[in-house]
Amino acid sequence: MSMLESIEETTRSRLFERTPDLASGDPESRRDEIREYFLATWARYESLFRTLARDEAYFEKSIPLRHPLIFYLGHTATFFVNKLVLAKLLPHRIDSRMESTFAVGVDEMSWDDLDDDHYDWPSVAEVMAYRDKVRHAVLDLIDTLPLTLPINWRSDWWPIMMGIEHERIHLETSSVLIRQHKLDYIRSDPDWRPCPKTGEAPENTLVAVPGGEVVLGKPFDAPFYGWDNEYGEHRADVPAFEASQYLVSNSEFLKFVEAGGYQDDEVWEEEGRKWRDFTEARHPTFWVWNNQWYLRLMTEQVEMPWDWPAEVNYHEAKAFCNWMARETGQSVRLPTEDEWYRLYDVAGVGEVPRNTSAGANLHLDHWASSCPVSWFRHGDFFDVVGNVWQWVETPTYPFDGFEVHPLYDDFTTPTFDNQHNLIKGGSWISCGNETLRSARYAFRRHFFQHAGFRYVVSEAEVRPPATQYETDKLLSEYAEFHFGDENLGVPNYPKAIAELAISAMGNRPAIAALDIGCASGRSTFELARHFDHVTGVDFSARFIAQGVSMADQGALRYTLVDEAELVGYRTRYLDQLGLAEVSGKVHFWQGDACNLKPQFTGYDLVLASNLLDRLYDPERFLAEIHRRIKAGGLLVLASPYTWQEEHTPREKWLGGFKKDGENYTTRDALDELLGEHFSLVGEPGRMPFVIRETTNKYQYNFTDITIWERKA
Amino acid sequence: MSMLESIEETTRSRLFERTPDLASGDPESRRDEIREYFLATWARYESLFRTLARDEAYFEKSIPLRHPLIFYLGHTATFFVNKLVLAKLLPHRIDSRMESTFAVGVDEMSWDDLDDDHYDWPSVAEVMAYRDKVRHAVLDLIDTLPLTLPINWRSDWWPIMMGIEHERIHLETSSVLIRQHKLDYIRSDPDWRPCPKTGEAPENTLVAVPGGEVVLGKPFDAPFYGWDNEYGEHRADVPAFEASQYLVSNSEFLKFVEAGGYQDDEVWEEEGRKWRDFTEARHPTFWVWNNQWYLRLMTEQVEMPWDWPAEVNYHEAKAFCNWMARETGQSVRLPTEDEWYRLYDVAGVGEVPRNTSAGANLHLDHWASSCPVSWFRHGDFFDVVGNVWQWVETPTYPFDGFEVHPLYDDFTTPTFDNQHNLIKGGSWISCGNETLRSARYAFRRHFFQHAGFRYVVSEAEVRPPATQYETDKLLSEYAEFHFGDENLGVPNYPKAIAELAISAMGNRPAIAALDIGCASGRSTFELARHFDHVTGVDFSARFIAQGVSMADQGALRYTLVDEAELVGYRTRYLDQLGLAEVSGKVHFWQGDACNLKPQFTGYDLVLASNLLDRLYDPERFLAEIHRRIKAGGLLVLASPYTWQEEHTPREKWLGGFKKDGENYTTRDALDELLGEHFSLVGEPGRMPFVIRETTNKYQYNFTDITIWERKA
Repeated sequence: MSMLESIEETTRSRLFERTPDLASGDPESRRDEIREYFLATWARYESLFRTLARDEAYFEKSIPLRHPLIFYLGHTATFFVNKLVLAKLLPHRIDSRMESTFAVGVDEMSWDDLDDDHYDWPSVAEVMAYRDKVRHAVLDLIDTLPLTLPINWRSDWWPIMMGIEHERIHLETSSVLIRQHKLDYIRSDPDWRPCPKTGEAPENTLVAVPGGEVVLGKPFDAPFYGWDNEYGEHRADVPAFEASQYLVSNSEFLKFVEAGGYQDDEVWEEEGRKWRDFTEARHPTFWVWNNQWYLRLMTEQVEMPWDWPAEVNYHEAKAFCNWMARETGQSVRLPTEDEWYRLYDVAGVGEVPRNTSAGANLHLDHWASSCPVSWFRHGDFFDVVGNVWQWVETPTYPFDGFEVHPLYDDFTTPTFDNQHNLIKGGSWISCGNETLRSARYAFRRHFFQHAGFRYVVSEAEVRPPATQYETDKLLSEYAEFHFGDENLGVPNYPKAIAELAISAMGNRPAIAALDIGCASGRSTFELARHFDHVTGVDFSARFIAQGVSMADQGALRYTLVDEAELVGYRTRYLDQLGLAEVSGKVHFWQGDACNLKPQFTGYDLVLASNLLDRLYDPERFLAEIHRRIKAGGLLVLASPYTWQEEHTPREKWLGGFKKDGENYTTRDALDELLGEHFSLVGEPGRMPFVIRETTNKYQYNFTDITIWERKA
Repeated sequence: MSMLESIEETTRSRLFERTPDLASGDPESRRDEIREYFLATWARYESLFRTLARDEAYFEKSIPLRHPLIFYLGHTATFFVNKLVLAKLLPHRIDSRMESTFAVGVDEMSWDDLDDDHYDWPSVAEVMAYRDKVRHAVLDLIDTLPLTLPINWRSDWWPIMMGIEHERIHLETSSVLIRQHKLDYIRSDPDWRPCPKTGEAPENTLVAVPGGEVVLGKPFDAPFYGWDNEYGEHRADVPAFEASQYLVSNSEFLKFVEAGGYQDDEVWEEEGRKWRDFTEARHPTFWVWNNQWYLRLMTEQVEMPWDWPAEVNYHEAKAFCNWMARETGQSVRLPTEDEWYRLYDVAGVGEVPRNTSAGANLHLDHWASSCPVSWFRHGDFFDVVGNVWQWVETPTYPFDGFEVHPLYDDFTTPTFDNQHNLIKGGSWISCGNETLRSARYAFRRHFFQHAGFRYVVSEAEVRPPATQYETDKLLSEYAEFHFGDENLGVPNYPKAIAELAISAMGNRPAIAALDIGCASGRSTFELARHFDHVTGVDFSARFIAQGVSMADQGALRYTLVDEAELVGYRTRYLDQLGLAEVSGKVHFWQGDACNLKPQFTGYDLVLASNLLDRLYDPERFLAEIHRRIKAGGLLVLASPYTWQEEHTPREKWLGGFKKDGENYTTRDALDELLGEHFSLVGEPGRMPFVIRETTNKYQYNFTDITIWERKA
């Protein structure tokens, strides 16, 4: 079937409005376009709720993990108000009670984390009246707000676009909730007609995809609205692989069901098995058995359309692949996000056209349901986009250059937890931003959307991306201390102390250095600018993990407290610190400075920075450190001498007390303890370092620095 | 008896060397003089120990609260070594074992705080051999060290003078220990002959002393060696008083003993009564009853010389005065230190002459004991100086401008505790610095020296001076934060925020201001530059005490941590901050900002700085603060918004969290909570503040500042 034929299929008099070009054009016509985009979205959203047969349907939950649909009716309006107030475009709230009720959705929580909250919901009529007020307020803004192009993240128009696109997302997620609701609550509607076409499913085959580079991510001046995680850049060389020509159909999936796949523990991943055990799933969630198989659509139940795509969650898709791999002996799995983009590029798919129907079951251009997997051809494949979303192996993660939008800092960041996998390509109801090549939505792996999958065969290893944000207070503060901004005008300390150590080395040999007490590892990397090999050792594996993340992923992500519980998001890149080329010379180990393994020896330099006053037995460390250092090599000690009982028992403090009646400083102790094997080089120094706790709170400290040369 | 006669009394061929003039003269002859001063002191000290009859006498304690005498033989040598090592004049120790043994004396502890330590003392011969080594080392320094005049605190010669004067102190205190030793252990010695003179005690009478100003303290460029507490300045107007012509003699004190004074609870101060009960004292400690009264001298026991001064501790002297006051109905008490100086000035006493014998039983110029109280006349009085030390009412305290010497920072500071009273005038064995008008020695009140007393009659109230150093970490840090140095280049914050508040007032009325959460009170004082009355309120009485100390005493003293347990000493003066003239406008109260008493109202300004995020219920504070402020008056809020559970329960935080899904800052909360009664004035601001913890550790924070005008 050609694209022309598919266009003829549509009986709709008007295409559902496309997401506007925000970069160029005539401002006033763009104002009109945004007005239309807003109104069309608002109307289509309300039209969706007309499939609810009676008021009761709004208040009973369709699934226990989400609010009832009344919440979603109000929520998209409240979202507008919240963002517009936050952006200071609305001087005050429109209805505080409504806005408190409709602000926060239930998270699509873990299936084993039920929540039985009771809400005193307003009536449907009240919510509709509230929606009207909000619609007027937004329209008023659209009609009066000065408009200049381009509209970018800092534009007053961004929160308006954000509100519209947010409602388009809920158009889709609410359609899923309606599909999960009791059929008794739902009525069919002429605006929401499912696809009437079905037939025998095609035999699926593997089609070769040549390897090549993919480029993901979009620049901040891209013309269409985007969510934060779409920005930045990710490039990857994708090795050649094979991919199934069609999405897995109900027919193909039936083989897995009939083979006892749901009971076959071996093919389920651990997390998927737990989900399956909890839900006692034996088949896809929208399949209904009543002497024969039926399929639940949004507004009706139909005889199983075997050639439509199987709709499953990630766990089910993954179990199918594992089962198929076992049966065929091939490396069957889901595609990665990179592989999906390679497929997209190779198949020659483009964006949804603005003035003609999509050549895919997308953007509500065709039906209010899936359609046969063999209906929309894209190059050698079918349904590279559209019909149903496609699960991929890749948990969502931020691209290089990722930033959060200040008006919506928790849109994606909470999902950077390796527990949310991406879905790609969009479904029949995906529209606006959701249909763009750049779209990146992710859900918990047990979650249901209008989503299925395509499988691939590839030997290439799937490496999980670095997704997680360090949120532990101390570790975050150290991440910033080592790799972050200059605070209070004080230069980066771990860098500065490494540079001082390198400078002290002069023209001594520079084969190997030990950074003992390396913490997050910045000095370790900096020393590698000068030394052939640098070993970073720290007692805390959690600190070392930050250095390892930098070495392996080239990036480190963490939150930083701004005020109390409010945080900002930071990503630091090794290459932006000019250290990418030395990462191969750096190795991190967990170890105890007071009981260091014999292997750590033969160093030209040992740097012990901010270590001494954190050791449980600093004298023991000093008593044997000379064994690690070559004759003529250096020991650089830097410490604020902040002795505290929580780190060092009082009787183990080196100095900072009266001894035999006289002041005895740590510097005095160092002279005594190191004099036998070392001679002091130059004058002791002092260096400031700053640790940021919040926007308003910093620790400002100084280290005392002594440099010691190992005697021959 | 004239001074000439007293000079003729001495049979000594040579006067005991006077403390050298360090300010002027020929350097090389001054080197010789110091050499002689050192050698004479060293020899006289060893000569004192020749009164010990046998080695056993060195090792048995003469009183349980002090080390045995062997310690003191070694201690004065070790003291030299310690100070010279500290001053980097000796490259290393002379004998580590000796120096560890002899470094720290037992504190003249409370009599109810016994210590049964066991030491493995070296032999007398070993200690003498060690002393010889030290003597050579010091002599070597004296012979080789470059000498320029004046010798001041920073001079390399200061620790040498310190060592000599220190040994002179121990010459006296060791003589007391010998006097307290079993007589069996002591032998008489031709160099230590007591006074042979005694007779009937004179009748004591009161002599009028006209009022006048006294000036205490000496400048840092004074010509003679001094201990830290002698420096600085103290001026006082002393009202006229009467003083006893003679020191109280044994004869006069006998009346008190025979009247049952030791059993008479009413005349003993509480601390004195405890001492008396513990020791079961019934008469002066050196009195011995054996069918008649005898007196224990240093090397012998003699029939009671009734005209010699009674030797007692402060408690006994005070009880005598209280008894006499009761018996006579007069305001009998001990003199204050100021009154002693007035007596000294009125009597026309001068320093001990350098080349002739003292006109007083002082400096070992006459005998190795007391002498009759009627022997040495000074104006209308006798024994204004010399014979025995005289207890005064005044606990030792630092003068304005007091600083500790870096080589001996715990010489006097531990005695600034209101538990050590001054003794004045010196005894027969006091020499060197001890004899100077400027000398200021203090001992615990139960302690014995060669000390007695003179009584005065005066209606003038005895006010205890401000002596104590704040040593609590938090309170010390706040004392410095409010009244101390600028740290890290950041201007004093409590001053700056007060100035900002004053500036914000413009030409509004400035009758009354409230500094709520005033802590140590600096802003309270600063506001008083502009307002007629300023009230400082804080929840912590301990913080307020610092402001009160500043207002009442004009000074605040505290220690500051340098490194771990090592501290420095600070004194801050209100007049040096330019605030002395406003102290009368300032009043401090303990109070709860969340439950403030109704009396605190009618203010033109309320300053709440660094308060909000330390309250247990900040909303309650904000909800009613408008009632305290006049219409048109200002509320200045400054806070870093550092919400912490330890101060404020989580549910009481004003902001710094997500509310209804959106970031909700404390600034947002302030707008909501204060909008009804206040309007925001100008733009919110930000100001840094720094709290010093150690030399190397600081808290560097920012406050957010909002200014609110009370609506009419």
